[in-house]
Amino acid sequence: MKKENNIDQEQLAEINELRKNSYTTLRATSPEVEEILYKPMKVLDHGFVRVVDYMGNDSAIVQAARVSYGKGTKKVSEDAGLIKYLMRHSHSTPFEMCEIKLHVKLPIFIARQWVRHRTANINEYSARYSILDKEFYIPNENNLGAQSSNNRQGRDAVLSGQEATDVLEILKNDASQAYENYEKMMNIDKEGNALNSEKIGLARELARMNLSLNYYTQWYWKIDLHNLLHFLRLRADTHAQLEIREYADVILNVVEKWVPETYNAFVEYQLNGVKLSSTAWGAIKSLVNGKLPTHEELNISKREWNELKELLDGK
Amino acid sequence: MKKENNIDQEQLAEINELRKNSYTTLRATSPEVEEILYKPMKVLDHGFVRVVDYMGNDSAIVQAARVSYGKGTKKVSEDAGLIKYLMRHSHSTPFEMCEIKLHVKLPIFIARQWVRHRTANINEYSARYSILDKEFYIPNENNLGAQSSNNRQGRDAVLSGQEATDVLEILKNDASQAYENYEKMMNIDKEGNALNSEKIGLARELARMNLSLNYYTQWYWKIDLHNLLHFLRLRADTHAQLEIREYADVILNVVEKWVPETYNAFVEYQLNGVKLSSTAWGAIKSLVNGKLPTHEELNISKREWNELKELLDGK
Amino acid sequence: MKKENNIDQEQLAEINELRKNSYTTLRATSPEVEEILYKPMKVLDHGFVRVVDYMGNDSAIVQAARVSYGKGTKKVSEDAGLIKYLMRHSHSTPFEMCEIKLHVKLPIFIARQWVRHRTANINEYSARYSILDKEFYIPNENNLGAQSSNNRQGRDAVLSGQEATDVLEILKNDASQAYENYEKMMNIDKEGNALNSEKIGLARELARMNLSLNYYTQWYWKIDLHNLLHFLRLRADTHAQLEIREYADVILNVVEKWVPETYNAFVEYQLNGVKLSSTAWGAIKSLVNGKLPTHEELNISKREWNELKELLDGK
Amino acid sequence: MKKENNIDQEQLAEINELRKNSYTTLRATSPEVEEILYKPMKVLDHGFVRVVDYMGNDSAIVQAARVSYGKGTKKVSEDAGLIKYLMRHSHSTPFEMCEIKLHVKLPIFIARQWVRHRTANINEYSARYSILDKEFYIPNENNLGAQSSNNRQGRDAVLSGQEATDVLEILKNDASQAYENYEKMMNIDKEGNALNSEKIGLARELARMNLSLNYYTQWYWKIDLHNLLHFLRLRADTHAQLEIREYADVILNVVEKWVPETYNAFVEYQLNGVKLSSTAWGAIKSLVNGKLPTHEELNISKREWNELKELLDGK
Repeated sequence: MKKENNIDQEQLAEINELRKNSYTTLRATSPEVEEILYKPMKVLDHGFVRVVDYMGNDSAIVQAARVSYGKGTKKVSEDAGLIKYLMRHSHSTPFEMCEIKLHVKLPIFIARQWVRHRTANINEYSARYSILDKEFYIPNENNLGAQSSNNRQGRDAVLSGQEATDVLEILKNDASQAYENYEKMMNIDKEGNALNSEKIGLARELARMNLSLNYYTQWYWKIDLHNLLHFLRLRADTHAQLEIREYADVILNVVEKWVPETYNAFVEYQLNGVKLSSTAWGAIKSLVNGKLPTHEELNISKREWNELKELLDGK
Repeated sequence: MKKENNIDQEQLAEINELRKNSYTTLRATSPEVEEILYKPMKVLDHGFVRVVDYMGNDSAIVQAARVSYGKGTKKVSEDAGLIKYLMRHSHSTPFEMCEIKLHVKLPIFIARQWVRHRTANINEYSARYSILDKEFYIPNENNLGAQSSNNRQGRDAVLSGQEATDVLEILKNDASQAYENYEKMMNIDKEGNALNSEKIGLARELARMNLSLNYYTQWYWKIDLHNLLHFLRLRADTHAQLEIREYADVILNVVEKWVPETYNAFVEYQLNGVKLSSTAWGAIKSLVNGKLPTHEELNISKREWNELKELLDGK
Repeated sequence: MKKENNIDQEQLAEINELRKNSYTTLRATSPEVEEILYKPMKVLDHGFVRVVDYMGNDSAIVQAARVSYGKGTKKVSEDAGLIKYLMRHSHSTPFEMCEIKLHVKLPIFIARQWVRHRTANINEYSARYSILDKEFYIPNENNLGAQSSNNRQGRDAVLSGQEATDVLEILKNDASQAYENYEKMMNIDKEGNALNSEKIGLARELARMNLSLNYYTQWYWKIDLHNLLHFLRLRADTHAQLEIREYADVILNVVEKWVPETYNAFVEYQLNGVKLSSTAWGAIKSLVNGKLPTHEELNISKREWNELKELLDGK
Repeated sequence: MKKENNIDQEQLAEINELRKNSYTTLRATSPEVEEILYKPMKVLDHGFVRVVDYMGNDSAIVQAARVSYGKGTKKVSEDAGLIKYLMRHSHSTPFEMCEIKLHVKLPIFIARQWVRHRTANINEYSARYSILDKEFYIPNENNLGAQSSNNRQGRDAVLSGQEATDVLEILKNDASQAYENYEKMMNIDKEGNALNSEKIGLARELARMNLSLNYYTQWYWKIDLHNLLHFLRLRADTHAQLEIREYADVILNVVEKWVPETYNAFVEYQLNGVKLSSTAWGAIKSLVNGKLPTHEELNISKREWNELKELLDGK
C-alpha cells in the first residue's frame, strides 16, 4: 500500500478530513504548530510523530509565572528575559503550564525506554484487544553499530559486508516468520477470516508474545513542557540510543515551533550547557591560572579527567 | 474599589481585552467553555475560579481510547457509550488525555487542603516576592458551624446570636490587625512607600508569617480530567469542608460544560454511585430474601450498620 | 542447570549468604516477612517474586495516621478498627507510609502491562548493557485460552489436541530461533567468546530487538502500600490477563503476611466490595420493595443489567 | 513545661520507650541512623526533625543498579565508584531504591514551601480534627533580615535597635492574641473544657483560620533518596529562605550518616558542582586562552556576567 511519511492513504484521508475543520478559540495559540497539527512526521522506517493537541505557548508561561489576570506579556523582549531567568534558575513550575499531546508510532524496544519517563499520560494501542500490523523496524545499513569496546552501553564501528547483510537478513526473516505464526496461532488471515474452520484460534493477548521487540506499537502521549524538556535532555543526548534520538530530534523541532523563546533558553542553559563537578571546576580555575592538574593530582579517574579534556578541547 | 465577581475593574479590563482576540485553530474545541473562558466565577467572599485554558473534549477521550488517526468519533451515541464503558470499568488513561488550567483565588487554609492532590501543576502567587492584598475570608453567618459532637472532623448546628456576632467580630479584627502590622513591619504604606524613613523594613518572606490562614492566595492550577474527577469526588462530597466544596461545585459545573458525556458518566458511576463492603453486600442480599441482619449478626460496628441503613432509606 | 523456584544454584547461594547475616534494628519489623525475605517465590515457568526490603507494618500505618511520637498503637483492637476506618473512607495517605521492594522476573509482555502503574520505582536489567538469558515463557497447556467471542479483551475455551500442540511448538521454535540469531548477530557464544573471529558483532542494544515478547526480563520494583493495593485491585481481578494475575496472587499473599490488618480491610472493602452505579442502586432498592426493574425500565444496556443480575445471583 | 530539643517530657518518654525495643532483621541496615532513630533534632525555636524509618543504604543502591540476587557489593571501593558514576551520569533510578520517613515539626509558612515537592508522601496533623498547640515561630534577632533591594525574593541587612524590638513585639503579640481568640471561638480552655456553658463553640475546621502562618504544624514525610537529594539541592541552597534551609541542613546531616558514599558523590557533583550556560562555557574557554569577554561581547545580561565573575573569583 502506498504510504506517505509512514502513514497509509486511508489514515491520511482521516487526517486531511480533520484539518479541514477549523474553529474559533480565545485560547493561546501557536500558529506554527497549527501548520503541522495532525500531520505525520516520519521517523525510522515505519514510525512517526504527530502533534494531536497542545496547550499554551511562550506567553502562557509568562502569564503563569506572573499569576496574571491578562495575557502576562509586557513586551516581547521582557518575556524572553523572564523565560531565560526561569530556565537559568530552574524555576520549573511555569513550564509545567504548557502541555502537548503526540501520537507516536515506534518500535516496542524503544517504547520500553520511553516509558521510563513516568510523568506523562499514555494511551497505547492494545494488542490484547486488537491485532498488531505487520510492521517491524529494520535498521538502515549505516546504523548497524557494533558493540562498543569501551562503553558497555553503546555502539562503535559499523558492520559491513557480509556481516551486515547477514544481520539484516536475520532480522527480516525472523520478524516475518514471527508474524506468520502470530496469524497462524490466532487462526486468522489478512482479512480477519479464519484460516482453518476446525480451529478456534489462540487469544490475541497470548499470540502477541510471539512477536519480536522490533514490532511497531503506537500511542497517544501527553506531557507538560517541563517534563518534555527533561525527556529531550536525556533522549536527544549522544548517550541515548540512536533510534530514540531520532524521535527526540523530531520533537525538539516541534518545541522550536511551539515555544521558540523557551527553546532558545533550553538550548543555551540545558542542551548546550555544561555541568562540572566541584573538582573539575577547581581544575579549570587552576588552568585559568596556568595549568590543568593531572588526574592523580585531582584524585579523579582517568576517564573523568578525559571527559574534562574533551570538553575543553571543544567536544 | 468596585468589584464584579470578586475581581476589580482593572483586572476585569485585562480579561475583557483578552476575550476580544479570537484565533483560528484546528484543535478540538469546547464551545461552552469558550463562552466562559477567562471570566471569573465568584466563590466565597473574595475568591473566584477562572478557566484559563483547556485541552480536548469528549471526542478527544474517544479519539485517545481508540488511538485514532482521525476524530475518534463514530456516532455521538457510540461515543457516549464508550465513555460510559470506560468510566464503569475504571479505564482511566483516556480521561487523562484532557487537561484544564484554572486560575483560583482561595483562602490559605483551603489552599492547604487543595495541595494534598499532588498530581497537578501549580504556580502560586509568591508572598516572598510580592505583597499580599488585604483580603481575608469571613464566613457567612449561616455557615458558622459548631464542632460536631459525633464527627470530630465536621460541623453541626450553627452558631447564633451573640456567640455568632462575637466570632465574626474576632475574625475581622484579628485579620485587620494582622495586616496593619504586616505593613508596619515591612515599613510600607498602601501605595508602597516607606512609612518611616528611618526604618529599613522587614523582608516580605518574613513579614508574611504574621498573616492569618484566612488570607487569600491565588494560583494557576493545571490538572488532567481523570485527576480532576478524583479531586471532585472527594471535595464535592458531604465529608469535605464546606468552603472547599463551594469551589468543587463551581468546577463541577465547568466540567459539565466542557465534557458533558463524561460528566454524565461521572455522576452515574462515581458521584452518585454506591460502594459497599463485602459484608454490606451480603446483608443486602439477605434483605432481598427477607430481612436485614443486625450489626451483631454481621459483626460490624453500629456506625457502619447505620450508614448502610441510611443508604437504604435513601440518603 | 538445576533450579529451585526458578532460581539457579549460584544465585540461591548468594541469597542464602545474605540470609545468614542478621542485624539489630529499632525499626518496625514484620516477622512473617523476615521469614521469606530474599527467597524466591516461583511464578509461571521461569519467573519469580522476591521481597528484597520493606518499610513499616500495620502499626506504622496507625502511627502515621496519628502523627504519633511513639508507636501509634493503643490496643491491637483499636488499631484494627482505625485501619478499617481509613480503608472505608479512602484515607489513603497513612497507607502510603509503608513501602516494599520486590525483585521480579517476568515475561516482557507482562512487564509492559506492569509499568502502566507509574507511581513506583523501577530498576530494570539493561539489555543495552548486558546479554539476556535464554529464558522465555511458554504457557501451560491448560492456559492456552482461545479468543473470547463476547469480550474482545479476554479468553474463553481452551485450545486442545493438535491445535494446542501446534501453538506450543510454534512458540518454542520461534523463541529458540530468535535467541540463536541473537547470539549469532552479536557474534558471541554461550561462554561469551566470539563465534567468528572475522566478525565484529552487532551491539547489544540492537541485537535484542530480535527477541520475542515472551522473553523474561527482571527488575527491582519499589512501591508504597497504597499504590500496591491499587495495583492488586486491578491485577488480581478476573479482568486482568491470567499471567499478570499469577504475580498479583503471589504478592497478595505477601501483603497478608506483611500487614494482616490492612489485608483484611482491603479484602472487605475493596477486593470483595461492590461498586454500584446510581441506577443499579435504585434498582436494588426497588428489588427490596418487590421486584427488579427490567433494563428497559432502567434505561441501561442489557450487558450492564446482566452484570447486576450476576452480582445478585452471587458472582 | 520542660522541653528537650523542642519535645516535651511525655513525648520523650514515648520515644525512649520505642528505642528500648530492638528487633532482629535481615534487611539492609544503617548503624549510624539506628543511633539517632526516633530522636528529635532541634530546628528553629519549636521545630524538629526525627527519623522514623528508613529503607536501604549505599549497598542497596549498588544492589539495585546491578539488579542483583545478592548484596550487590563487590568491593567497597568498587561500590563507591559505581555510586559516583551513577550520580555523574544522572542515573537516578538506583537512588530511588532507598527511602526515608521523617517526622517534622515546622511553621506553616515553611510547610507551604515544602509541599511544592510533590513526589513524597505526607501525613499531616489535622487541625480539622484536633486542636493545634500554642507554638509559633519567632525569628532569632540575628535573622530579622530586611527586604533585599536587588533581589525581590531575598533578605539583606539585619534589622536592629528599636525596629527589631518592635517587629519581635508585634509577632509575639499578634500570635498570642490569635491563639487566645482561637480558644475563645471554640469555647474551650487549656484543659479542653468549655469556657462558657451557654456557648456551643465554633468548629475546629473554622476556628483555625484565625491562626497566623508562623504557627507550627507537623507531619510524617516519606520520600525516596533521589527526590530527597533534589529537595536538598534546592532547599540547602543560598537562594532558599533561611528557615527552610535550617531544616535542609539537618536532613543533609542525616543523609551523610545514612548513605555516606552517596552523600560524597552528591556534594561533589551536585551541591558543589557548577552549571554553566553554553555562552558561559565559551567565555571560560576564551579566558583559558587569554581573556574573559565582556558581557556585551557575550551578549548576556550584566547580572548573568557578574554571576560568572563571582564564580570564577571563588564564591
